[in-house]
Amino acid sequence: MNGHREYDPPRHFVVDAVRRAIADDVGPLGDLSAALLPHDERAVADFIPRAPGVLAGTLCASETFAQLDPSVRVTWAEADGATVERGQSIGRLEGPLRSILTGERTALNFLCHLSGIATLTRQFVELARPVRVVETRKTLPGLRALEKAAVRAGGGANHRGTLSDMVMIKDNHLVGTTIAAAVSRARELWPGRGIEVECDRPEQVQEAVAAGVDIVMLDNMSPDDAAKCVEIVRSSDRARTLVEISGGVGLETTATYAATGADLLSTSMITQSAPALDIGLDLGAE
Amino acid sequence: MNGHREYDPPRHFVVDAVRRAIADDVGPLGDLSAALLPHDERAVADFIPRAPGVLAGTLCASETFAQLDPSVRVTWAEADGATVERGQSIGRLEGPLRSILTGERTALNFLCHLSGIATLTRQFVELARPVRVVETRKTLPGLRALEKAAVRAGGGANHRGTLSDMVMIKDNHLVGTTIAAAVSRARELWPGRGIEVECDRPEQVQEAVAAGVDIVMLDNMSPDDAAKCVEIVRSSDRARTLVEISGGVGLETTATYAATGADLLSTSMITQSAPALDIGLDLGAE
Amino acid sequence: MNGHREYDPPRHFVVDAVRRAIADDVGPLGDLSAALLPHDERAVADFIPRAPGVLAGTLCASETFAQLDPSVRVTWAEADGATVERGQSIGRLEGPLRSILTGERTALNFLCHLSGIATLTRQFVELARPVRVVETRKTLPGLRALEKAAVRAGGGANHRGTLSDMVMIKDNHLVGTTIAAAVSRARELWPGRGIEVECDRPEQVQEAVAAGVDIVMLDNMSPDDAAKCVEIVRSSDRARTLVEISGGVGLETTATYAATGADLLSTSMITQSAPALDIGLDLGAE
Amino acid sequence: MNGHREYDPPRHFVVDAVRRAIADDVGPLGDLSAALLPHDERAVADFIPRAPGVLAGTLCASETFAQLDPSVRVTWAEADGATVERGQSIGRLEGPLRSILTGERTALNFLCHLSGIATLTRQFVELARPVRVVETRKTLPGLRALEKAAVRAGGGANHRGTLSDMVMIKDNHLVGTTIAAAVSRARELWPGRGIEVECDRPEQVQEAVAAGVDIVMLDNMSPDDAAKCVEIVRSSDRARTLVEISGGVGLETTATYAATGADLLSTSMITQSAPALDIGLDLGAE
Amino acid sequence: MNGHREYDPPRHFVVDAVRRAIADDVGPLGDLSAALLPHDERAVADFIPRAPGVLAGTLCASETFAQLDPSVRVTWAEADGATVERGQSIGRLEGPLRSILTGERTALNFLCHLSGIATLTRQFVELARPVRVVETRKTLPGLRALEKAAVRAGGGANHRGTLSDMVMIKDNHLVGTTIAAAVSRARELWPGRGIEVECDRPEQVQEAVAAGVDIVMLDNMSPDDAAKCVEIVRSSDRARTLVEISGGVGLETTATYAATGADLLSTSMITQSAPALDIGLDLGAE
Amino acid sequence: MNGHREYDPPRHFVVDAVRRAIADDVGPLGDLSAALLPHDERAVADFIPRAPGVLAGTLCASETFAQLDPSVRVTWAEADGATVERGQSIGRLEGPLRSILTGERTALNFLCHLSGIATLTRQFVELARPVRVVETRKTLPGLRALEKAAVRAGGGANHRGTLSDMVMIKDNHLVGTTIAAAVSRARELWPGRGIEVECDRPEQVQEAVAAGVDIVMLDNMSPDDAAKCVEIVRSSDRARTLVEISGGVGLETTATYAATGADLLSTSMITQSAPALDIGLDLGAE
Repeated sequence: MNGHREYDPPRHFVVDAVRRAIADDVGPLGDLSAALLPHDERAVADFIPRAPGVLAGTLCASETFAQLDPSVRVTWAEADGATVERGQSIGRLEGPLRSILTGERTALNFLCHLSGIATLTRQFVELARPVRVVETRKTLPGLRALEKAAVRAGGGANHRGTLSDMVMIKDNHLVGTTIAAAVSRARELWPGRGIEVECDRPEQVQEAVAAGVDIVMLDNMSPDDAAKCVEIVRSSDRARTLVEISGGVGLETTATYAATGADLLSTSMITQSAPALDIGLDLGAE
Repeated sequence: MNGHREYDPPRHFVVDAVRRAIADDVGPLGDLSAALLPHDERAVADFIPRAPGVLAGTLCASETFAQLDPSVRVTWAEADGATVERGQSIGRLEGPLRSILTGERTALNFLCHLSGIATLTRQFVELARPVRVVETRKTLPGLRALEKAAVRAGGGANHRGTLSDMVMIKDNHLVGTTIAAAVSRARELWPGRGIEVECDRPEQVQEAVAAGVDIVMLDNMSPDDAAKCVEIVRSSDRARTLVEISGGVGLETTATYAATGADLLSTSMITQSAPALDIGLDLGAE
Repeated sequence: MNGHREYDPPRHFVVDAVRRAIADDVGPLGDLSAALLPHDERAVADFIPRAPGVLAGTLCASETFAQLDPSVRVTWAEADGATVERGQSIGRLEGPLRSILTGERTALNFLCHLSGIATLTRQFVELARPVRVVETRKTLPGLRALEKAAVRAGGGANHRGTLSDMVMIKDNHLVGTTIAAAVSRARELWPGRGIEVECDRPEQVQEAVAAGVDIVMLDNMSPDDAAKCVEIVRSSDRARTLVEISGGVGLETTATYAATGADLLSTSMITQSAPALDIGLDLGAE
Repeated sequence: MNGHREYDPPRHFVVDAVRRAIADDVGPLGDLSAALLPHDERAVADFIPRAPGVLAGTLCASETFAQLDPSVRVTWAEADGATVERGQSIGRLEGPLRSILTGERTALNFLCHLSGIATLTRQFVELARPVRVVETRKTLPGLRALEKAAVRAGGGANHRGTLSDMVMIKDNHLVGTTIAAAVSRARELWPGRGIEVECDRPEQVQEAVAAGVDIVMLDNMSPDDAAKCVEIVRSSDRARTLVEISGGVGLETTATYAATGADLLSTSMITQSAPALDIGLDLGAE
Repeated sequence: MNGHREYDPPRHFVVDAVRRAIADDVGPLGDLSAALLPHDERAVADFIPRAPGVLAGTLCASETFAQLDPSVRVTWAEADGATVERGQSIGRLEGPLRSILTGERTALNFLCHLSGIATLTRQFVELARPVRVVETRKTLPGLRALEKAAVRAGGGANHRGTLSDMVMIKDNHLVGTTIAAAVSRARELWPGRGIEVECDRPEQVQEAVAAGVDIVMLDNMSPDDAAKCVEIVRSSDRARTLVEISGGVGLETTATYAATGADLLSTSMITQSAPALDIGLDLGAE
Repeated sequence: MNGHREYDPPRHFVVDAVRRAIADDVGPLGDLSAALLPHDERAVADFIPRAPGVLAGTLCASETFAQLDPSVRVTWAEADGATVERGQSIGRLEGPLRSILTGERTALNFLCHLSGIATLTRQFVELARPVRVVETRKTLPGLRALEKAAVRAGGGANHRGTLSDMVMIKDNHLVGTTIAAAVSRARELWPGRGIEVECDRPEQVQEAVAAGVDIVMLDNMSPDDAAKCVEIVRSSDRARTLVEISGGVGLETTATYAATGADLLSTSMITQSAPALDIGLDLGAE
């Protein structure tokens, strides 16, 4: 369960997010309802998707019980990134019934949200193939590392993690300066960093490519305009510069945008607006 | 701005969530891109919805700048709960351009997510009227207090805040016991607390009403079955017992379920699957 | 040791409170005195009450050593809620002598304070029987969840955990409004919640019962006045409404107040003014 | 209000303790009851003791409102350490009624607990004069710095703050060694530190004085035995060595123990078992 | 003082580091020595370097007093990055004498350590000019963001902030694979990121350049070998690939390594082994 | 590994410092470079000093992997305080290659910094023998407990841990008062505490000795002046009062200052300016 696979968020983000989620849900008196049950009743329970999707968040679900009651045993039949079917058991809890009921919602809140992200990402990935799908910084507050890992579980790649990772030059950074000058300044301040420039029109694309940036981002362009800009890049002497299309990338437009020959499609939908994957917990007596 | 209106989450949840969101987004080197700009450049910027909706999250957006750079002045033209139009200015930032750009995404992530919740809640509320709409405990980890406030901003009411608030008796709490016995045990353990019982069939509704519970929850019933159960309650000698319908409550079914005469419709969609409201930040030179 | 019995506080409150207590007691240089001892000296030590009482806080004492030095083995002969005798061993530590001495005071501070609460609660409970005893929100800062669990260990029931749990309408909430209107507003804002109204005189009791509240709280009344108000409730058509007597409930008055036929006696003494139960740690060589 | 008088705890302990206390009391939905009130209602409220005593905890009460709602203005008529009368106004709040009600209990919990400590300390101090009264490490978990400041407010002096402050050699530290050897080892490990030795009998006192310790602690001795031990010290060539009497120091025995001529009386009662001072908050319309 | 200049660390790192530093230094009883002074004594004090150097850490020093006692006024005559002379006043405190003394050491510990880094960085920068100097991830635990800002204050540039920023391929990442394959895999996993490869010998440099990496890092090479490798890069068709020299870069070797024509010299000395700049605080009566 | 040897910092400081260090180094996307490796590759790695020195920080290195990936097994051939040779294996890691690489730098940052302190301390200790060497409060922010433990590992003794430990009377505490009066006041406020007085000239030494302080600190005196002051103390009737020499104590002056017959030499160099001990991690395939 250790070893940090590609899909796993770093452990300390998991530990912290689970700590907050438990504090959110378990008030000072504990679980009033679970207290109605005999404290020595034990149970087995299975995590069961109510709809097909892509799994993510298993580390969080495990950590929930590790923090609430380490005597609950958690085992997984499937790992993050797996395609799961409606009705199959993807994981199992064994332990005190009270603890299982108390932790159920917290564990499911992670699983459903993160699997929702992985599932929607997978849909984009399949429509875009072989173009890569990446998320944006439009993530939910406090959940970024987990959501970015869920994007990877869905087959997407990650864009910037933080504002310290790469240089992203947008309109607002170009007040009173040129793309060339801004890129040059970026190289001076932050040597060796990836540099991306947001472009609204073909001339900007030419400038950006000439400046030798790592990614040209086409912002809110129509597929046709985007295709023309891709062509500008490909016919330049820096033909392998990455082209990212951003803005307007929805499930219905992904295939069209992918056909432009760009390298990356970025969409905030997968992190900011993904519906939860419905996963439930079915209990049986032990 | 103080005074704790109904729509406001308690201040310490705002402070903590913003602290985490900033830590998520601003890495150790700060904002590489903002550093390209002159540090004494100042700007004015307006929060502008790209679509109509209901506003929520203004306290979080204000707090973002209070933490990042208290010299940024934040003023609001609209308050949480307001209906906002596409293109109108709902709030304004004035201060150092760098700080505005660095905080932009964090502030917007709160505004867009929470306004998305308020907006979807409002749609449910309007379809359900006069039946009340409530959320569930299916909230995003670490964001519960903020999301529940956004539900209130949208016109919904709040269900349980934590497992310590009310007693909720579900199937899993009834292993080897009866509704009557469980309710009696709940009253003994937790005198004066609200008690809710999840019912799958009419007989359970009768038992629950007879036990004098505060809320009968009809779980995953068809509108017809639900209507029959409402009738059971209304024709009992505890006719004013609240009836909550849960499961299957979507935008397309809300009006139908509301027509059953229930008191509350609960849905996890408004917290767990609400698409973000698209709000942007438009900059001008000061 | 897991399984969350009624008497146990939720685990994260235990972990956090112990972390703070250790930080309070163990400064940056560690335990100057324990450092005088050979680091490989081992010991066995028993927790011994110096007076009879009711035990509470064992989870905190265990957690103290789990955090300070997990190699110290902690076993309990008695559980929270048990009546303990002067001089008996209620629990045992085995491990490095230094670690035992360093953790002794922190573990005992929890045990003595929480057992003091449980012991005093038990005295009230026995005097009040069959009337229930509940605590108030007058708890010591940062220790609420632990103190409420100690009240349960002593045989008491819990009142509100937080301000989010129930609606409690006091004089100050009735400025410019009536009990009926306030209760109605409470039901609108917070459907299904327990509602309690503080009453100073019989007419308020009548109003509150008529409004259908869950608990009528008689505030600072003499036993005679309280008995009259209980009678008002019992002879109403909502005879089973809970009646709580608050204010003036001390050890010497409890039996008298209990004789009024009320359902609940609440007292802040058990959390705010309970003397510590004297428990010591007796060491022997291993 | 700044400037760190003797009676004030360091500010970061105040900030942290208040943060935890608010989190304890204000759940995710905020104050359900305060929400019944108009959000723009303002009020003035006075802190009024219901019994005479010594004030402590004003910094905590101020900080409570600074964190909950900085628009509440807090002013004090009396400072920590002042003798207060039943019925006088010791401090005043002005601001939104809702915020005042929400913060009332948290602020009072600090004031009542800490003033209770200061009040009981003052009683001991007056009985013991001119002998000094000191507390022990038997403080409530997470509240040590505040409680030690309350002891100072009551006129007591402080014993060790943490295990890192002084060397305290008890029976358990003397396994297989002598007082002389242990003191010598302590001087080697921790040069210049205060060293105290717990003594159960006269010979130990002689050994400790001969070893040149800073404090001889007479543990659980009768007043007569203690007086003899004081005489041993006073007639030695280190006559000014401090003598502390510990164990059995209650209100009824303090004067007797003080008459032994010791320098310090230590008691855990003032921190561990002090009843709260009853202080209330009286509201008026602004 | 706001506006986030290049030299400033993000504010939340400052706030957190100062919180920990105060907790480290101010124990539960506060400053025993400052308590000897009259609490209303006020003072003015100047920060004075005892040796020339480059200033860094002013935000931390300001924040120290903001947290300890906001009534202390802090003003700066010089900003981070300024060259300061022995004996000049670089900043001034005005406020309660006790608070100034209590915060003195914490504020100076930041100023001395961070100015020490800036000062040593400046020495490297001047020897290396026009080659850039960068630090490594060998920073002191918990202080990275502050130390990286101090490097910028000294005129250096920053290398990776975290493991999430760039891809750095070292020997240990090349087990069973080639540079070309690893770079290709990195591009697939992390599109658009800066990629750096550590090279021990000329063939690796050729491979890395051929793979199109952003930075070729020459590890522990002699100046002659490094010069040859620089030549390999410059004569390739990717002549502007950045070359970083790492290992063995000390004050005495910097000029020689800079003469190789590399772009970046990295050294852990500036963060891990920089002696503190001696800065003191001189008090005068107000 | 437990049992709290003299050299070990208290466990909670280790846990907290490691938590912050990991958060500093492992961003939201995890280790981009380690992700290039197969996740099931395992490795063995040895910590190897590149120079001789004194070991410190092993608890921190162990804790790094306990937090990052508990499946990494950490074993030590040497303990804190041991003299280690260039090239020997001092400890070993066994586990997933990715986790080892991700944690390598964090673990080494602790080991190198703390061993650097221990190593420099040992040099001072050997030059000063039999005079004791102590550090000062000039430690790096957030690392005090660890650095003080490293001083002990190097053979030094510890001075004050916090401002709450001892009374230290400096010039600034003597405004408008005398040494005698200040010492008397200190004894009144803080009975039994160690008291140290900083002296700049012989008369102050006489005053301090007459006042019966525990430590006379000679501040910034020449060896000759210091020797005279030592003689003043030794020829007084409190000949065993400790004398500490502070200011100007460097490696080249230590022997000379030690020859004065003082008891303690204090230097900030060992904590504030100690160069890191170069320790690396050498990997082999498992």
